[in-house]
Amino acid sequence: MSTLKLTHNIPTKLVFGCGELKRLATEPMPGHKAMIVISSGNSMKKHGYLDKVVKLLIENGGTESVVFDKIQPNPTKRHVMEAAEICKKEKCDFIIGLGGGSSIDSAKSIAIMANNEGDYWDYIPSGTGKGMAIKNKALPIIAIPTTAGTGTEADPWTVITNEETNEKIGFGNNDTFPVLSIVDPELMTSIPPHLTAYQGFDAFFHAAEGYIANCATPISDLYALESIRLLYKYLPAAVNNGNDLKARSKVALASMLAGMVESTSSCTSEHSLEHAMSAYYPSLPHGAGLIAISLAYFGTFKNDCMKRFMKMAETMTEKKSARPSDFLEALETMQKQCNVNDIKLSDYGITPEDFNKMKENARMTMGGLFACDPRPITGEEIMDIFRKSYK
Amino acid sequence: MSTLKLTHNIPTKLVFGCGELKRLATEPMPGHKAMIVISSGNSMKKHGYLDKVVKLLIENGGTESVVFDKIQPNPTKRHVMEAAEICKKEKCDFIIGLGGGSSIDSAKSIAIMANNEGDYWDYIPSGTGKGMAIKNKALPIIAIPTTAGTGTEADPWTVITNEETNEKIGFGNNDTFPVLSIVDPELMTSIPPHLTAYQGFDAFFHAAEGYIANCATPISDLYALESIRLLYKYLPAAVNNGNDLKARSKVALASMLAGMVESTSSCTSEHSLEHAMSAYYPSLPHGAGLIAISLAYFGTFKNDCMKRFMKMAETMTEKKSARPSDFLEALETMQKQCNVNDIKLSDYGITPEDFNKMKENARMTMGGLFACDPRPITGEEIMDIFRKSYK
Repeated sequence: MSTLKLTHNIPTKLVFGCGELKRLATEPMPGHKAMIVISSGNSMKKHGYLDKVVKLLIENGGTESVVFDKIQPNPTKRHVMEAAEICKKEKCDFIIGLGGGSSIDSAKSIAIMANNEGDYWDYIPSGTGKGMAIKNKALPIIAIPTTAGTGTEADPWTVITNEETNEKIGFGNNDTFPVLSIVDPELMTSIPPHLTAYQGFDAFFHAAEGYIANCATPISDLYALESIRLLYKYLPAAVNNGNDLKARSKVALASMLAGMVESTSSCTSEHSLEHAMSAYYPSLPHGAGLIAISLAYFGTFKNDCMKRFMKMAETMTEKKSARPSDFLEALETMQKQCNVNDIKLSDYGITPEDFNKMKENARMTMGGLFACDPRPITGEEIMDIFRKSYK
Repeated sequence: MSTLKLTHNIPTKLVFGCGELKRLATEPMPGHKAMIVISSGNSMKKHGYLDKVVKLLIENGGTESVVFDKIQPNPTKRHVMEAAEICKKEKCDFIIGLGGGSSIDSAKSIAIMANNEGDYWDYIPSGTGKGMAIKNKALPIIAIPTTAGTGTEADPWTVITNEETNEKIGFGNNDTFPVLSIVDPELMTSIPPHLTAYQGFDAFFHAAEGYIANCATPISDLYALESIRLLYKYLPAAVNNGNDLKARSKVALASMLAGMVESTSSCTSEHSLEHAMSAYYPSLPHGAGLIAISLAYFGTFKNDCMKRFMKMAETMTEKKSARPSDFLEALETMQKQCNVNDIKLSDYGITPEDFNKMKENARMTMGGLFACDPRPITGEEIMDIFRKSYK
């Protein structure tokens, strides 16, 4: 008897392509007044993206909008609550996340709180969250990413930091899938090289973790391998020439595919470990944290899913692979080509004294992902990953 | 500048696996009273599938149901209208299609007419249809396929025959995607060998047409090639031993993937030609009609997308391909292994006098698919395809 079982559920309409932002003027809108959520930096204004979005919304049947522009790189519960309050007052009936993962994730969490009472952490089912049932559906969400990494445009997940408790927790349900995502690589040309690399590797690890996860499916495998192939081939070019629209486009597609992996398989504990690191050291970019621990992390599992490591290596190098460590070598090559091969935990102020509490925090706040590892990882192995990635 | 553009939109929750029919008792239902649409044959009753579905619905919060059991192999507008009338009278608020493509397609069309006035053909935008706008959304649809071929569980399309006008026309919109599809290969073991082959090849051509279509995307390509790979490898085993659950499972997955191709790329004119054939000769099974014209049809385009033909050949045979006709050879091999390599149009009573009117009917009723061909096909080439497939 065949034991193959899977669920595939990505209700988001994904619109992808250079220049496709204009579709915001013609796609059916899920409401009449949007809250547009952007970061506290000025890039969305400077590059004219915000003005364009406001204008396209007006073209689309006179859709109104208000702007919330306080989101930080590690977005916080405080801003989610503040924006949701404004949303209720302004009677916004849908939310647009415009920008990087932090803005889009915030849009998702704001969409929940704009239609529900209480505190966001009341609904968080792990860590110090109360795990209460969400009474009303989140408002409809539109995602317009201007970075290529999180994949949040193609998954229901939103990662928010509770700055009172040092918890950075992922959350989501069927209603936090965007109803529409517009991925326009032309909005990504201004990302500087090091952030292009961090974000691209975030996408890479969504795909690679989702490929070795014990809940991978034949369909998530299709997305994962194609994402891995595209990133190995095009991320270095996008890092080294931000105006290479072909490379930007391939990387954006890879990121979207990796988001589809997150919706159909799962990240593994690498993401839990990184969330714990960023929760204590908010200046550590998520992608940089993942890169720092990646070789030690994947090395831990290299004998547990040998065929999958070899398949990833073959997909990357287009050469026959004879041993799982070929993947680790290809990963290191790619990191060198993207100039991010020397990131260490110590660069961001992390000290060996932090390792134990980060380990505990990872299990407490994002314990679910450990269940998706190829096999249970031990506490000693986690400490070893931190040690190897320290300096 | 990169010209890669795509839209990916498959809002259906797809649940796949042996024994997964039981999920009907636990998944959220979109309503309180279902119309269950089944064929006029007795297989859904004989095998106990209908009883199971009714029982699982009751377990799911006491969901009520009524049964409509008149659907024919080429489902008709008359039955769509009759069922929709019953639906309104019985106040059903969602529709379940249980069975082959004819039952599920009918469920989709009934879902439209149960919530709208007038005649189904008022809304059909081609042939003699009036192309009127649909006023109200279709009722929610759940698909439970018991065959592996149509892919209708993963696409919005419904193909209905207007028996008054000899038109067999595909139709659908965003609301005719099933909200939930449960694909349980255990429900497929009783399909006889020749139907297993016809249906499996229907899936194969959804994938292969979608792969050579000029609107193929990098994501539809992933689904298409995996579907082609699985069918080449497992369809012969499913045909030759219907109880081989592993083969049944792989073929069912391939069919679902091919449905995802139909949602993200498109069929080409091979399907238009077959619809015209079946419209005049309703005893011709859709899959048999496709098989009959397939070698001549694909032969027509073999020099227009050579790399894609070779990629399909390599995916099938797992050998390096040097020329596009390798695909035609692999296709013929597969047809031999499935004992369907000698189907001719003359077997079903089609005569050379029919060729011209079938050609005209194909363009009139399903003209849209011609626009997706790798290049425009000429009338003479169509006549030639019919001639080569005649006997």
